[in-house]
Amino acid sequence: MNQKSAPPQRASEAAVAGQDKETLLSRVWSPRTDLAVEAHELAHQRTAVDKTPLSGVTHQRQMVEGVEVTRIHVHNRDGAKAMGKPLGHYVTLFSPAMRRHDPEAHTDVARLLAEELQGLMKLPKNARVLVVGLGNSHVTPDALGPKVVERIFVTRHLFESMPQTVGDGYRVVSAVAPGVLGITGIETGEIIHGIVEHVHPDAVVAVDALASRSLSRVNATVQLTDTGIQPGSGVGNKRKVLDALTLGCKVFAIGVPTVVDAATIANDAMDLVLRQLADAVPGNGANAVFDPLSGQEKWLLIQELLEPMENNLMVTPKEVDQFIEDTADTLARGLNMALHPSVTAEEAAALSK
Amino acid sequence: MNQKSAPPQRASEAAVAGQDKETLLSRVWSPRTDLAVEAHELAHQRTAVDKTPLSGVTHQRQMVEGVEVTRIHVHNRDGAKAMGKPLGHYVTLFSPAMRRHDPEAHTDVARLLAEELQGLMKLPKNARVLVVGLGNSHVTPDALGPKVVERIFVTRHLFESMPQTVGDGYRVVSAVAPGVLGITGIETGEIIHGIVEHVHPDAVVAVDALASRSLSRVNATVQLTDTGIQPGSGVGNKRKVLDALTLGCKVFAIGVPTVVDAATIANDAMDLVLRQLADAVPGNGANAVFDPLSGQEKWLLIQELLEPMENNLMVTPKEVDQFIEDTADTLARGLNMALHPSVTAEEAAALSK
Amino acid sequence: MNQKSAPPQRASEAAVAGQDKETLLSRVWSPRTDLAVEAHELAHQRTAVDKTPLSGVTHQRQMVEGVEVTRIHVHNRDGAKAMGKPLGHYVTLFSPAMRRHDPEAHTDVARLLAEELQGLMKLPKNARVLVVGLGNSHVTPDALGPKVVERIFVTRHLFESMPQTVGDGYRVVSAVAPGVLGITGIETGEIIHGIVEHVHPDAVVAVDALASRSLSRVNATVQLTDTGIQPGSGVGNKRKVLDALTLGCKVFAIGVPTVVDAATIANDAMDLVLRQLADAVPGNGANAVFDPLSGQEKWLLIQELLEPMENNLMVTPKEVDQFIEDTADTLARGLNMALHPSVTAEEAAALSK
Amino acid sequence: MNQKSAPPQRASEAAVAGQDKETLLSRVWSPRTDLAVEAHELAHQRTAVDKTPLSGVTHQRQMVEGVEVTRIHVHNRDGAKAMGKPLGHYVTLFSPAMRRHDPEAHTDVARLLAEELQGLMKLPKNARVLVVGLGNSHVTPDALGPKVVERIFVTRHLFESMPQTVGDGYRVVSAVAPGVLGITGIETGEIIHGIVEHVHPDAVVAVDALASRSLSRVNATVQLTDTGIQPGSGVGNKRKVLDALTLGCKVFAIGVPTVVDAATIANDAMDLVLRQLADAVPGNGANAVFDPLSGQEKWLLIQELLEPMENNLMVTPKEVDQFIEDTADTLARGLNMALHPSVTAEEAAALSK
Repeated sequence: MNQKSAPPQRASEAAVAGQDKETLLSRVWSPRTDLAVEAHELAHQRTAVDKTPLSGVTHQRQMVEGVEVTRIHVHNRDGAKAMGKPLGHYVTLFSPAMRRHDPEAHTDVARLLAEELQGLMKLPKNARVLVVGLGNSHVTPDALGPKVVERIFVTRHLFESMPQTVGDGYRVVSAVAPGVLGITGIETGEIIHGIVEHVHPDAVVAVDALASRSLSRVNATVQLTDTGIQPGSGVGNKRKVLDALTLGCKVFAIGVPTVVDAATIANDAMDLVLRQLADAVPGNGANAVFDPLSGQEKWLLIQELLEPMENNLMVTPKEVDQFIEDTADTLARGLNMALHPSVTAEEAAALSK
Repeated sequence: MNQKSAPPQRASEAAVAGQDKETLLSRVWSPRTDLAVEAHELAHQRTAVDKTPLSGVTHQRQMVEGVEVTRIHVHNRDGAKAMGKPLGHYVTLFSPAMRRHDPEAHTDVARLLAEELQGLMKLPKNARVLVVGLGNSHVTPDALGPKVVERIFVTRHLFESMPQTVGDGYRVVSAVAPGVLGITGIETGEIIHGIVEHVHPDAVVAVDALASRSLSRVNATVQLTDTGIQPGSGVGNKRKVLDALTLGCKVFAIGVPTVVDAATIANDAMDLVLRQLADAVPGNGANAVFDPLSGQEKWLLIQELLEPMENNLMVTPKEVDQFIEDTADTLARGLNMALHPSVTAEEAAALSK
Repeated sequence: MNQKSAPPQRASEAAVAGQDKETLLSRVWSPRTDLAVEAHELAHQRTAVDKTPLSGVTHQRQMVEGVEVTRIHVHNRDGAKAMGKPLGHYVTLFSPAMRRHDPEAHTDVARLLAEELQGLMKLPKNARVLVVGLGNSHVTPDALGPKVVERIFVTRHLFESMPQTVGDGYRVVSAVAPGVLGITGIETGEIIHGIVEHVHPDAVVAVDALASRSLSRVNATVQLTDTGIQPGSGVGNKRKVLDALTLGCKVFAIGVPTVVDAATIANDAMDLVLRQLADAVPGNGANAVFDPLSGQEKWLLIQELLEPMENNLMVTPKEVDQFIEDTADTLARGLNMALHPSVTAEEAAALSK
Repeated sequence: MNQKSAPPQRASEAAVAGQDKETLLSRVWSPRTDLAVEAHELAHQRTAVDKTPLSGVTHQRQMVEGVEVTRIHVHNRDGAKAMGKPLGHYVTLFSPAMRRHDPEAHTDVARLLAEELQGLMKLPKNARVLVVGLGNSHVTPDALGPKVVERIFVTRHLFESMPQTVGDGYRVVSAVAPGVLGITGIETGEIIHGIVEHVHPDAVVAVDALASRSLSRVNATVQLTDTGIQPGSGVGNKRKVLDALTLGCKVFAIGVPTVVDAATIANDAMDLVLRQLADAVPGNGANAVFDPLSGQEKWLLIQELLEPMENNLMVTPKEVDQFIEDTADTLARGLNMALHPSVTAEEAAALSK
């Protein structure tokens, strides 16, 4: 009966859990990140070391009303391989003010989000959209998707049963929170497939909580992509990708990092010490000393450190509950404006509570 | 934008709302009940008045460990018409002790429920079962279904990914809470169809909160049926029935009345006054006086009374929150034992919290 | 152990429960209302019957931006006796639009509430205020007070530990939700007394969910008073009144009706039938017929009707969860503006989520 | 208006925040622990280095039904100074099985907890007890105290209003959750003082979520003490201690570690690397290399690492929500049995849900 005692898990986590233990131990430590901006940074660092240029990826950054907007385009296989991310567009909004319970910052991000979503999705006026809230509504930092779904202005049933009541400028929108594998016993992808086959949307927009490798991006970043959803991506498992090919419609994703892996904190602490020591040792002596700790050995140390909780730990700010509420509100405002052109910023603010 | 202000509605309620107003006003008042035992009582009263026997229905009652168990079998069309209920079996457990936060009463009901479910479902050892929690998790008296789903011991993912970890005596169980039309914009039936087509269960068990026409049955009754689920049944709409024919597998339902319509209270108050007056008037004079109030006229009075809230009212005990938690616990215990023969009563009690 | 099975109760309800059963049965039915506007209507009806003028009470009504504002002043003992309410001022805002999830209506009510509160409280610039949220946070229609407390902008700790960070135009505000008797085992009044003796506020503002006798006022009415708080008022028990005399500071109350007693619905249904019948009977015959039902007899009928649930029932709209969230938001916005003159409407909207 | 954006804080955290920044930076890193067993380990390590015996402290460990029970007695000032903990008794139950959703483990801990509490409290038969649930009910890992309070079987109001209904073997018990400074604006200690002055208990039992310095103890440890409550203890501030002297009655505390500071993880990761390196360096060379990193320098590195979130981070298991529910249940069962000798284990299990 131990299986019930296992926590409700995200599809992606279950994927990791299902891996062979030996495979895990033979791995070289590499911090978990779901953000393209972080994958790009890491790829950039590697190319700097290897003296090989990073090709197949374009990267552009600008400030818009106090928000840092980064656009990354992975346009061929080389780029995808270097980044560890699929082909497509990644737009990232970064606004540390999101972490403050600051109404103006959230209003700005919601409006920018609506604009960027419209630019990315390029939906025809009468498109049908299904919003999918991924994650576990009972685990605070994972509840972002379900909380956004609750705030979406759904209209599909109105278009079907009383179309005369829906004005111009509204699209056919529906929304589901399919739950997580540990509670349903069903792969999230299977549930979404089943619903898509009945609802026939022109586009699916998935909303999910992500893991960042940097504390400074937690609850301060929104990532939009047109690349589909890859539960357990980067872990090399055979989980089904949800994208245009498999679902038969466009698939967009909106993600916000709400946690950092405890392993990332541990890794960063180790690196900081090693760098400090290297600085303290004159000449090239440092390398000799710190070599044993690169790669696999560091991974083993991290496993040893976090083993008492089976590495099943997350690092969150103490105010995670308020952050999730605020962010769900902001995402829903942006989505409601992007999906329904007739919804004004004021209406979106009221609808999305 | 008013549609959002409309409350999240149950499929069955939306069905009522969608009806033509004139149809509603031409109706003769008839209290809403989802319980076969109440439909049987009403049918019985009518046959007593008409002096015609109630045919096509068998009815049997017994006391089992302080719980009143009623078995009703609707075995032909006459019976179905008289009852206003589809052909099939209805088992009702009635235990007023369920309303007390009394551990023994709940344990007794859970065990009886497991036995009756097993008798009704007659599932083969290796059957695959999908539990569906109907209702809105954000409206307390409607949250019963989703709260049961959270407590179901799901195993389907374990059978798929690590079958060696699942012992004998466990069936392949999955569970979903599809949400309600007002929040998803999708008919609940469509979502269930989509999931069933991917999960291929041998049986679906739907759990739902019901309306009773009697206060004494609220939170004290569990009804089991093998007749499928009819969202908005009795309202004559074209909503799709979910049964063996449409879903391609057996469909069972477990329901507990958690509310009484305010209209039922109003109706009962009116009847009580009328009976009191009839007793006070000597001879046959009463009939003359009270005739104008039968049927349609009473319905109009009830509409007038409840109109300020658009008849969108429910009557619940003040402790509804505690009742729903206790009942969700009890139903989950019964279900976990019925679905997994290896689960003992003690394990069920622990699993179902 | 049955006491635990008793539901968490409001102080006022526990008071009723504690009464002698015979006293209850000897009562003439009189609908429960916590609203001065309803007490005034009833008093007015009685004086119309008795042909005696209603003295000691002034009553004034006006429309302000679509909101009906009623000001009732009970200025002597005659008025208090006729109304069944203590001396003082009662301001009622009535806006059916509050029941729609309509942002503008809520913004209007919040602003009006702030103005009326300021007019009623007449607080000096540096007054110290304690907000008290009465009610049970686990019973949805009773959770209004605790939900408002969560949204109050408290400053007392800032004034004490880092006064330089608090700008001009902020008062010293603290806020508590003391819980209910059934969960704490302590009279709410005792807890408030204890806290007041340590916090030394110049004014206490209590926020509470009320019972209305009219469905049309539920979730559409806000009542402000300067008369103190009388847990279980009108029930003739010896529960301590919380007012200027007992607490040593001004005591204001803000209340919103969120439920109607099931007994009120039953009573109204009976009256409707009786009136209908009286109209149908020619001449004065009606009185003869319906006399037996006045007063005590009707009360007994109501008891008989609701007995299965021990009269422990409430009637709420099905969307009660959304109403409570919206209303808590609106009350907190009004309070935050009234307590802190520097808080703008925009800041209040953001702070009070 | 930034103060509102500050998160709701525990009294103890606010104390840290209120400290002078320079004081913080001059500190030598020392991991945060609220557990006497961990303070004892640290003291023991220091005495091993200093070659001075640890005096004034007795320490005894035994296994009871699979649970490790440690009894620490700090019996003089030397011991208190060495431990950084006040004089008194500390009983710790350690059961890793608590982390599994395992009913038997929780039943065992609840029963042991009841026994140890009775042994520690030595309450007379008719003692009056006030249970205080510390912490913020809206921040999952801090909600333990309020969640226990909800499950306590309170009787004080029954003894006052209908003493004949309370059987033998029940004590006069009340329970409050006073909220946290960031939400009330009032020091928790002031609220407790105010309530104690009205309720006049013979003993206060405070329940609180703690921070551990070891992942293996999180959600697997219960600490009981008779030493009073020291909000912000060990941080050297002037916050009022709540103990027999200040409250005028016995003060017990029950605590369970639910988080580890992110700084502790970072520190441990650094130490692990340093130890690894020291092992790799032959002879005494290591000390020379790693000396720069002891003490203050490590503290600065940790600050640098965690600065983006202002060191306001916690590390929790991903299943924190389930752990808190299970543990609140277990603590309430133990408390209800210890406070009311007539409550059996079965009744406690049913009462405490």
